[in-house]
Amino acid sequence: MPATDALPRAVRYQDGTLYVLDQRRLPAAVIIEACKGAADVEHAIRELQVRGAPAIGIAAAWGLVVEAEHTEVADMAGLLAHISGWAARLRSARPTAVNLAWAVDRMMARLNTCGSERGELLAALREEAQSIEDEDRAICQAIGRHGLELLTPDCGVLTHCNAGSLAVSERGTALAPLYAAAEQGLPVRIFADETRPVLQGARLTAWELGQAGLDVTLICDNMAASLMAAGNIDLVLVGTDRVTANGDVVNKIGTLGVAILAHHYGIPFYVACPSSTFDAATATGAEVEIEERDGREVTHIADIPIAPEGVKVRNPAFDVTPAALVTGIITERGIARAPLASNLRRLLAA
Amino acid sequence: MPATDALPRAVRYQDGTLYVLDQRRLPAAVIIEACKGAADVEHAIRELQVRGAPAIGIAAAWGLVVEAEHTEVADMAGLLAHISGWAARLRSARPTAVNLAWAVDRMMARLNTCGSERGELLAALREEAQSIEDEDRAICQAIGRHGLELLTPDCGVLTHCNAGSLAVSERGTALAPLYAAAEQGLPVRIFADETRPVLQGARLTAWELGQAGLDVTLICDNMAASLMAAGNIDLVLVGTDRVTANGDVVNKIGTLGVAILAHHYGIPFYVACPSSTFDAATATGAEVEIEERDGREVTHIADIPIAPEGVKVRNPAFDVTPAALVTGIITERGIARAPLASNLRRLLAA
Repeated sequence: MPATDALPRAVRYQDGTLYVLDQRRLPAAVIIEACKGAADVEHAIRELQVRGAPAIGIAAAWGLVVEAEHTEVADMAGLLAHISGWAARLRSARPTAVNLAWAVDRMMARLNTCGSERGELLAALREEAQSIEDEDRAICQAIGRHGLELLTPDCGVLTHCNAGSLAVSERGTALAPLYAAAEQGLPVRIFADETRPVLQGARLTAWELGQAGLDVTLICDNMAASLMAAGNIDLVLVGTDRVTANGDVVNKIGTLGVAILAHHYGIPFYVACPSSTFDAATATGAEVEIEERDGREVTHIADIPIAPEGVKVRNPAFDVTPAALVTGIITERGIARAPLASNLRRLLAA
Repeated sequence: MPATDALPRAVRYQDGTLYVLDQRRLPAAVIIEACKGAADVEHAIRELQVRGAPAIGIAAAWGLVVEAEHTEVADMAGLLAHISGWAARLRSARPTAVNLAWAVDRMMARLNTCGSERGELLAALREEAQSIEDEDRAICQAIGRHGLELLTPDCGVLTHCNAGSLAVSERGTALAPLYAAAEQGLPVRIFADETRPVLQGARLTAWELGQAGLDVTLICDNMAASLMAAGNIDLVLVGTDRVTANGDVVNKIGTLGVAILAHHYGIPFYVACPSSTFDAATATGAEVEIEERDGREVTHIADIPIAPEGVKVRNPAFDVTPAALVTGIITERGIARAPLASNLRRLLAA
């Protein structure tokens, strides 16, 4: 496996520029936008060039850095007001992304406690953005370390959607153990669900794993059962957008189906996420409202119609996998297994 | 529901012409080819304008009729040799389609027992082709009648791939009970899996049900679990390419996954097929070789790449659903339920 630095990265800051990989164009084109101000970063977030909650938060943090570095506003009061204004704009670039508001708020809190020289301000912003990114990276690495114990030589691992380096700082969550295995020289056969309708598995997961030199095979979502029946899958690893208090897992549409198939064949089904994904305030997955997206995502691929005009469509973006179908949840603090809710609480309180 | 004659038909013979609906172009364009000779029909079969084993058989039978009607070969010996030559060519247009060889052989057997006048020969061919089509239609109608008893007002029915009028003479197998329900004024909510990679559900099933005025909603394959969890599905109805002696069901990739999900949620899973689909010579599904098709079907849609170039792909075209997951098999002779193998044998021997 190539060095970690060689992994595809959603965003990368260097010498006053934030480089954003345009994920909308993958895998057909690898286009990296050079952002030298918050406006560029806001555009990248709004237009979904960058996606994945942690990656969006990191992009916004660096967005404030490059804005402060390049703005012509010179006086300190003006600069503070300017950055504060951009913080508000970036914060609302995608209102539902929790990490976005969290990262921006953290940057502003740091700004309010740093010295009053321009140089101090810039250093503080850079340091805080780097901390946000480094902490995220450390979480991914820890998830990778803990998840590694689940892998055996030549095992077959199925993943769904993209919970990889493109969604996070690097390594991702569900894919982190796979990158860790590659580093250790442990061979793993990875199968990526294409993940209709938006095809994150085909476009992103297959691409980033391939770029990193890992052994990945793309399948249609409806082929997973057949591969499990044939004994090709030993483990399922997926990410999640939210884990509710009882251990229910909210994740990309199709995750529930994979969990039921794994249960049927006695294949372990693990979910990987930072501990911050645990939502203790929501009792069960039944309380989570599932976003129903535009039917055009189903009826068109790359603007080409694949279904009759005007056909009725359902397009839920997420589904809820009951805790009972989840073998374990891998966090940066370790793995929680059944009974999931109490073990997860214990792990996170430790 | 419109009259049965208004249903989309894969092939339709009238006054010396076989009209073939070009299914490759659906649903974007409804193009009907007028075939006035066996060469046109052979082309339609080879190029997959017509698909579905029964529909291919019927097309080939009528192909011999239109050839005999339009050929300039006048003497009887020459005409017989000419038709016999075309029979051999049509028979091999798609070598794996059992119904194709069966239909052509049946036409030739009839030819060999009819009178020696040109008019007698033409009449015999027309009569035999009509018989093949009528028998197929009667089978579909009987399957529809038997399957109707499984439906209740406003029930939700999930189907996979296309086992409808486009694959058969009319009404299809899995869709026949749904057409029968519409005729009776029984409201049914139908959900069609899009059926990756070739999208027969999105392109064909959603289209033909919509044309017939039935209530159909298109979903991605990976949404079925979510709909079942929400209580939207009361019954699964699918077709099959082959039922082995023990009751295992070979059908379009993705069928196995749907069967496991239905089993998990306690939803009845029924398979509809003519009794001729029962393959007593093959003990179990494990003996059936599963065709692995070109990976390009997965990596491209309408020639547009949706995955990284050169990515490894699995693309099995079919899967095997074990008899234990099948609630029942609906044939033209009635419904066989568990224990499937013995009840199916009893039904077919009756």
